[in-house]
Amino acid sequence: MPNQTHLDLDRVFHALADPTRRAIVRRLSRGPASVSELAKPFTLAMPSLLQHLQVLEESRLIRSEKTGRVRTCEMQPSALSLAEAWLLEQRTLWQGRLERMETYVAALKSKEKQHGKRHTK
Amino acid sequence: MPNQTHLDLDRVFHALADPTRRAIVRRLSRGPASVSELAKPFTLAMPSLLQHLQVLEESRLIRSEKTGRVRTCEMQPSALSLAEAWLLEQRTLWQGRLERMETYVAALKSKEKQHGKRHTK
Repeated sequence: MPNQTHLDLDRVFHALADPTRRAIVRRLSRGPASVSELAKPFTLAMPSLLQHLQVLEESRLIRSEKTGRVRTCEMQPSALSLAEAWLLEQRTLWQGRLERMETYVAALKSKEKQHGKRHTK
Repeated sequence: MPNQTHLDLDRVFHALADPTRRAIVRRLSRGPASVSELAKPFTLAMPSLLQHLQVLEESRLIRSEKTGRVRTCEMQPSALSLAEAWLLEQRTLWQGRLERMETYVAALKSKEKQHGKRHTK
C-alpha cells in the first residue's frame, strides 16, 4: 500500500474517532451547511468547533469555502470511500478464510464418512 | 445513537488510525496468530507491539488467549461491522440527497420545457 494511502487512512480514521466530528460528517451527508448552522446543535465553543472542522478538512472528509463572511462546509465522499474500501478488504480476507475452513471441514467429514464405511464393511 | 455505540466507534476508529494496527488487523483477517508471529514482519520493539495489541483488544477488533506461554490473537469481525455500518449510513444519506437533487433538477427541466412550449405557441 503506498505511503500516501496510509497517511490518508490514518487521517480519515483519526477524524472519525470523535463523536462530534462524526456528527458533523452525518449532518453534511444530508447537504452543505455554514459553520454557524453546524455550531447550532452542539454546546461547543466556536474555537473547539473550528478545530474539529480543521481535522475533518485535513482528512479530506469535508471541504469548506468562504463567500463574503460565510464559510460553507460540504462533504467529500471520496475519503469515506477510502475507509469503506479498506474495511471491505479485511472482510473479504476474513470471509475467504471462513470459506476455506468450510471446504476443509467438508472434506474432513467426507473422508470420515468413507473411513466409517470401510470399517463397517 | 446510544453512548456505548459512540464509545465503541471512537475506539474502533482510533484503533484503525495507525498503519501498524491496520497491518495487524489485516494479518489476523487471514487467521489467528501468536504474538511472536505477529511481531515478525515489524521492526518494532515488543513493548510497542504489545501496546498496539492492547489498543486493538480494547476496541474489540481482536481478542487474545494465553495457552501455556503462547498468546494467540484472533480477529473479532463484529467491531469491523460496526464501523462499516456507520460508513454505510453516511453513504446512504449522501446518496439519498443526490437522488433528491436529481429529481428536483428533472422537475425544474420539465417545468422549463413546458414554459418554453407555452412561449413558442
